[in-house]
Amino acid sequence: MEFTAQQIADYIKGDVVGDPTAKISNFSRIEEGIPGTITFLANPKYEHYIYTTEASIVLVNDSFSPTSEVKSTLIKVPNAYASLAVLLDMVEKLKVKKSGIDSSAFISQTATTGENSYVGAFAYIGENTKIGEGCLIYPHAYIGDNVKIGSGTTVYPHTAIYDNCVIGNNCIIHAGVVIGADGFGFANENGEYKKIAQLGNVIIEDSVEIGANTAIDRAVMGSTIIRKGVKLDNLIQVAHNVEIGENTAMAAQVGIAGSTKVGSNCMLGGQVGLGGHIKIGDNTKIGAQSGIVSNTVAGSEIMGSPAIPVKNFMHSSIIFKKLPEMYKTLYQLQQEVEELKKNKQ
Amino acid sequence: MEFTAQQIADYIKGDVVGDPTAKISNFSRIEEGIPGTITFLANPKYEHYIYTTEASIVLVNDSFSPTSEVKSTLIKVPNAYASLAVLLDMVEKLKVKKSGIDSSAFISQTATTGENSYVGAFAYIGENTKIGEGCLIYPHAYIGDNVKIGSGTTVYPHTAIYDNCVIGNNCIIHAGVVIGADGFGFANENGEYKKIAQLGNVIIEDSVEIGANTAIDRAVMGSTIIRKGVKLDNLIQVAHNVEIGENTAMAAQVGIAGSTKVGSNCMLGGQVGLGGHIKIGDNTKIGAQSGIVSNTVAGSEIMGSPAIPVKNFMHSSIIFKKLPEMYKTLYQLQQEVEELKKNKQ
Amino acid sequence: MEFTAQQIADYIKGDVVGDPTAKISNFSRIEEGIPGTITFLANPKYEHYIYTTEASIVLVNDSFSPTSEVKSTLIKVPNAYASLAVLLDMVEKLKVKKSGIDSSAFISQTATTGENSYVGAFAYIGENTKIGEGCLIYPHAYIGDNVKIGSGTTVYPHTAIYDNCVIGNNCIIHAGVVIGADGFGFANENGEYKKIAQLGNVIIEDSVEIGANTAIDRAVMGSTIIRKGVKLDNLIQVAHNVEIGENTAMAAQVGIAGSTKVGSNCMLGGQVGLGGHIKIGDNTKIGAQSGIVSNTVAGSEIMGSPAIPVKNFMHSSIIFKKLPEMYKTLYQLQQEVEELKKNKQ
Repeated sequence: MEFTAQQIADYIKGDVVGDPTAKISNFSRIEEGIPGTITFLANPKYEHYIYTTEASIVLVNDSFSPTSEVKSTLIKVPNAYASLAVLLDMVEKLKVKKSGIDSSAFISQTATTGENSYVGAFAYIGENTKIGEGCLIYPHAYIGDNVKIGSGTTVYPHTAIYDNCVIGNNCIIHAGVVIGADGFGFANENGEYKKIAQLGNVIIEDSVEIGANTAIDRAVMGSTIIRKGVKLDNLIQVAHNVEIGENTAMAAQVGIAGSTKVGSNCMLGGQVGLGGHIKIGDNTKIGAQSGIVSNTVAGSEIMGSPAIPVKNFMHSSIIFKKLPEMYKTLYQLQQEVEELKKNKQ
Repeated sequence: MEFTAQQIADYIKGDVVGDPTAKISNFSRIEEGIPGTITFLANPKYEHYIYTTEASIVLVNDSFSPTSEVKSTLIKVPNAYASLAVLLDMVEKLKVKKSGIDSSAFISQTATTGENSYVGAFAYIGENTKIGEGCLIYPHAYIGDNVKIGSGTTVYPHTAIYDNCVIGNNCIIHAGVVIGADGFGFANENGEYKKIAQLGNVIIEDSVEIGANTAIDRAVMGSTIIRKGVKLDNLIQVAHNVEIGENTAMAAQVGIAGSTKVGSNCMLGGQVGLGGHIKIGDNTKIGAQSGIVSNTVAGSEIMGSPAIPVKNFMHSSIIFKKLPEMYKTLYQLQQEVEELKKNKQ
Repeated sequence: MEFTAQQIADYIKGDVVGDPTAKISNFSRIEEGIPGTITFLANPKYEHYIYTTEASIVLVNDSFSPTSEVKSTLIKVPNAYASLAVLLDMVEKLKVKKSGIDSSAFISQTATTGENSYVGAFAYIGENTKIGEGCLIYPHAYIGDNVKIGSGTTVYPHTAIYDNCVIGNNCIIHAGVVIGADGFGFANENGEYKKIAQLGNVIIEDSVEIGANTAIDRAVMGSTIIRKGVKLDNLIQVAHNVEIGENTAMAAQVGIAGSTKVGSNCMLGGQVGLGGHIKIGDNTKIGAQSGIVSNTVAGSEIMGSPAIPVKNFMHSSIIFKKLPEMYKTLYQLQQEVEELKKNKQ
């Protein structure tokens, strides 16, 4: 399908700057733009590409004013990235979704699946499990006993959801995710570890997205809870009895130890580690690879392992490079002072 | 089911302090305690909750003496966490276990499964593979050719056990675990990598638990070995020819490079990285996110990347924050000393 | 099968030093060598074992000259590790490969599989998907719609390859790998995250090996690209629109954020994190656990988080240990200088 700049501008409520009849039939990244595609500029780091891109149309923020000639037709919108999202979403929705229950799926007699749900080949749905309307349960998904899944939720292949877990509406769970495996709980008895049975479950609220191969352990008692709107990237570890507040986003490979509570609207960079039994305040921002071992107040911006305020970390890291030089200077100075003290006598 | 404080105290050989007829039918965490539940206090960090918890019964250590009024009935035991484990275990054992061989499972004709073993839907068991008595092989488990699994072992969904691997008795292998994939071995020939065939296997001894999505590579020759009683959390990487000693426990996302030998009774925090070809002595404790590149002596407690003794790391980390201030002070001091030297002349 | 030292030397074009009739029937590691086995010495760290090993034959580099008596027969070759690889490979090739299409596999009517390909039990192959000749598609593999896989490629169990992805020839994809899950893209709208549809794909070129449970996300638009000859270890995260250059090797648990371009012939240590939207020059070597947030020039050798030149990192790390001592010295010195200044007046 082909669209003109004017048609697109009308759809996303933007203003055309340039040729309103410019036509596109696909998306491109600004640095790889070719004629017939639409791209966007949101990150200022990429601005220089707008002066050379071959893309026919570029979505830009209202605030953008070119410092040189731009060949492409521009569409100005309040938030170029958000408008791009609207366009991508439109295309995504045109895709035909899978439907029907594959005859090779294993659905236990006591399980129920809602209307318009898809259950793919070799999917397994356990006893007393209830799956809502319009869900997509992909091939090889494993959903244990007494699980509840809301409506509109997608479960990709090789996801394992253990017994008694609860998943909300409109969630997306990517391939290889494990929800509800036993928490890592042992009592050390004379040097050997005795397993602590993990009797709790995992509760995932609505509109949560969980990236590939992420693992969320069941609680020892009670629930491990992922609140509404949380977005977890790939290969993340969430230990037993953790709670993650609404609309918190975590990049890949973050690890959270047991019983820690993360506030809402937090942002965690990749490979961050949170110690156990701590509280991370709302709106906390944590830089990649940081390690946090104590509570943080709401709104903190921290980095390092152990983490300190971001600016402090940046400054100290610059000095870290100079440590050998500082060390030399310090002990030279010490000698000079000794010399001065001697001479004084 | 409902139990009284006295019944529970009798079962775990504890002493009731308070009402021996207090009844409970479920567990709770101390900060979320509600009437009709039993909870426990082991971590002193949580002591303040015991004065406000609504839980009917609290398991406490013999050494605990309240500093304020406690409403709950207490049961005193030598080790509250261990006694909790006994109670949770009792409940766990009341659960009905899966049994039987699902007709959709693929079991090769030359494979054998022991008595009272469960093999779930779509599970795959390869040629000449032997599975012991009372094993639980969940749906979608993949067990290759010539594998041996002892008795009483649980293999959760989507676990992949490659050819020729050996698993002991009473192991628990969580969903998504990969045992026996090829080690990362290549010879660089003129800038291209030529694969080194990985002909060894993985041996997992008895009573080992392996967390979700952990990967343990097969040896290039010989075996990668996980000794008796080892507990590995989720998303851990164990490279080829590694050996992990008895009763060592590792938190999530630890990574161990090739041919490294970890001693027995070690404890590794989350996201620790061990370099290749090193030896970690028995009883070593390694703080989260540490990086170890050389041998450690038995009983070391180390942290940091590269790791140093824990106390040293803590002290140096405190000073790290002050580096910008130190830097300024140092060069100011240098100027002052220069000034003093001039004046002296 | 049994081979003599002379037969082996002829096969790998090496020179026998010692008994050319020495016989072996298996491989061993030098520290575990037993009679009847062949081992190798490449890493100088292991040299001392050659004087005590019981292995009948040891492959050594031409440059090796023993400093003490060696009981084993030696075979001298230009590169002992490469020659070992040749021998291991010979044995690997003697293994009988799986073949045929299992009747329980799900192959959509519009999919095609090349000659001599194996498709295991419960494997799933989606619509319009094309699989080349001589591929091994293991049980429980999931291959979505419109996927293209070249010839000679192995896909191990529980691998998930999402729609529209492209895999080259002679690739090896280990168990639990996820290729083409949605990139982590969201637009924040008033504190809630709106999903950005991820319409691109993943392209894996020829001769790529991908370790267990690694995740490679699809591009938001265009492609995430893994170039020819790349070797990725286990549990690695590759975000959307990343590109990894030819013959680059990455150890386990590396994480790469979105849109970053890694050059060719790079080597990344375990648990390295690369920030988003950066360029890593060709031939860059990055030490384990490093964090990179800006572009690197070709040939850099860096380490630390944030990374600095390796030698600088090593020196600064040594001083890091001495920070408490430096701190004390510095402020003592400051006092002494104050004293000197006073006395001067």
